[in-house]
Amino acid sequence: MSGPPRRAGRRPGESGTREAILEAARGAFADLGYDRATIRAIARSAAVDPALVHHFFGTKDGLFAAAMRFPVAPSRILPQVLSGPRSKVGERVIRTFLAVWDGAEGGAAGLALLRSAVTNERAGRMLREFLSRELIGRVARETAPDAPELRASLVASQIVGLAMLRYLVPLDAVASADADRLAATVGPTVQRYLTGPLASGEPVSRSRRAGTPR
Amino acid sequence: MSGPPRRAGRRPGESGTREAILEAARGAFADLGYDRATIRAIARSAAVDPALVHHFFGTKDGLFAAAMRFPVAPSRILPQVLSGPRSKVGERVIRTFLAVWDGAEGGAAGLALLRSAVTNERAGRMLREFLSRELIGRVARETAPDAPELRASLVASQIVGLAMLRYLVPLDAVASADADRLAATVGPTVQRYLTGPLASGEPVSRSRRAGTPR
Repeated sequence: MSGPPRRAGRRPGESGTREAILEAARGAFADLGYDRATIRAIARSAAVDPALVHHFFGTKDGLFAAAMRFPVAPSRILPQVLSGPRSKVGERVIRTFLAVWDGAEGGAAGLALLRSAVTNERAGRMLREFLSRELIGRVARETAPDAPELRASLVASQIVGLAMLRYLVPLDAVASADADRLAATVGPTVQRYLTGPLASGEPVSRSRRAGTPR
Repeated sequence: MSGPPRRAGRRPGESGTREAILEAARGAFADLGYDRATIRAIARSAAVDPALVHHFFGTKDGLFAAAMRFPVAPSRILPQVLSGPRSKVGERVIRTFLAVWDGAEGGAAGLALLRSAVTNERAGRMLREFLSRELIGRVARETAPDAPELRASLVASQIVGLAMLRYLVPLDAVASADADRLAATVGPTVQRYLTGPLASGEPVSRSRRAGTPR
């Protein structure tokens, strides 16, 4: 931190304060996971008012996105994923994911998070909770007829695998594929995981309780 | 190595020779990747006759499996994946994969390989080439009506993602799911990637390759 904490506005110390909050956030998310880290505690650790954290970063997902150096907060992406025909939501999920990760900034941030999730248990929990709570979990809660938790996890499995083979351990046919082509190919998988029958011959909505684990 | 190289049979030095071969194999696979490492060069580096490598480990995939401490060589699993109704091959792929990875030995070996593939570029290439050449690549070459490389890569993306969220960064709904249930749920994805139309509205066999069995 480059000076005493400031309380608001665009003043010379702003970037130092911002960086102090991000630093405190990274520590809190790593130590406590996404769910248990609170804006109040992060503000306290950065010696600023919680209102300032909201002022800079909006909600917790925005703070997390900034702390992890994501180029954009998921709450700003989700509306475009959820709008449009429900029958194409799977394709939009993949298209949006690729648009962020194929970009230089998003790719670097995503890769760093994915790599650390694999090698560090706490980073893994952090990523997992963030995915469930904010990203895929939200899409599933909006679109799934049942079993949103299982459906979100299945979607996550396809997306994580795609990220692995497109960016981290590049398999040529996936790594060099055109994003539109890939969205058209993998989208139906996400579509079925979100809205289709989960196993062949199974009714779509066997259990409608939210969050029911199988 | 605990003694001079032996040329055959079950003699006191056998386990030392076996270990020397495995050590040489690990080095060769890591340095050269799966495709370029040859049994001849590995034998030379372990100071044994290539015939002895074949005697101990069979083909290159068996040697690789032993070097990576897989509990079983893929060439011994593939027949059971490929036999039975072609319409259920996707489900058998997932079922077989889970049977090996859910086992203690297979799980530990698989995890070690996956973790090192993420953090080490050479290990990544090794895993990638092995998957393409021996495991999923073979299934795709036997079952895909076209585009076997892309189809194999798509299958790999789903399997790698499943492995990530079941074992490495466990997401509860996937990690605790019953293997049969998971095979029934994820199997249709693999089935479509292997044999179905790759994108909605696309014909299944745009470019059927000569001699491809259905």
